Amino acid sequence: MNNSMTEGSEPTLTDKFQRGNVLASSCPSRSILQDVTSRWGVLVLFALLQGTHRFSELRKAIAGVSEKMLSQTLHALEADGFVLRTAHPVIPPHVEYSLTDSGHEVANRVEELVNWIEVNINPILSARDKYSSLKSD
Amino acid sequence: MNNSMTEGSEPTLTDKFQRGNVLASSCPSRSILQDVTSRWGVLVLFALLQGTHRFSELRKAIAGVSEKMLSQTLHALEADGFVLRTAHPVIPPHVEYSLTDSGHEVANRVEELVNWIEVNINPILSARDKYSSLKSD
Repeated sequence: MNNSMTEGSEPTLTDKFQRGNVLASSCPSRSILQDVTSRWGVLVLFALLQGTHRFSELRKAIAGVSEKMLSQTLHALEADGFVLRTAHPVIPPHVEYSLTDSGHEVANRVEELVNWIEVNINPILSARDKYSSLKSD
Repeated sequence: MNNSMTEGSEPTLTDKFQRGNVLASSCPSRSILQDVTSRWGVLVLFALLQGTHRFSELRKAIAGVSEKMLSQTLHALEADGFVLRTAHPVIPPHVEYSLTDSGHEVANRVEELVNWIEVNINPILSARDKYSSLKSD
């Protein structure tokens, strides 16, 4: 993966002409970012890093997601090529969801963000308490 | 920062009892994740990595954001301790927004995700085209 721009170095010509720009509202990279960071998208990618899951297993793993929202989220991630849906031709139907190679790459980055938040939850909650007590003074 | 769990190693006792779990609906880490990955939150963090901005500069940098949504987003990120709001006592009022240390840490992870999407936009868009042509067959 080309990470040359993460360090603040000058973008190459290829970067300039071929990469997206999420700050521009018309750039399709923004809708991809929204699929990945949607309320349930981020949790589906995170959960699928643990391996292949059936729909019902995903619903159980991600507390609070409705059948409809999980279905919509999986469709969007499948359309972007991040999730592979495999339907086994058996009765009753057996459908499994897993990450593709690019799904793994994007999910790894989601995981780093999630892990950072999970590990740093206590100082963040302290900041929240401090903020709300300042605001109520 | 403790990143010991990102490599799939066994969590320590401290990790087990002190870190959040975004897959549990009642865990406050989930609402922090939502502030960070909200439609505009992710773009505000990304834009603030470039440095301190005034409100009007942020609105210009993030195409499409409304005054109301930018204000709500900045409030949420300020409450979590990620964004520092500095009001200079001058006339007319001069308010600046910047990342705190923890804001930098979380924004760096957002940036890695954004960069990956921006750099990989072409294969992702090809996957989308392939998916929609398969679905319309």
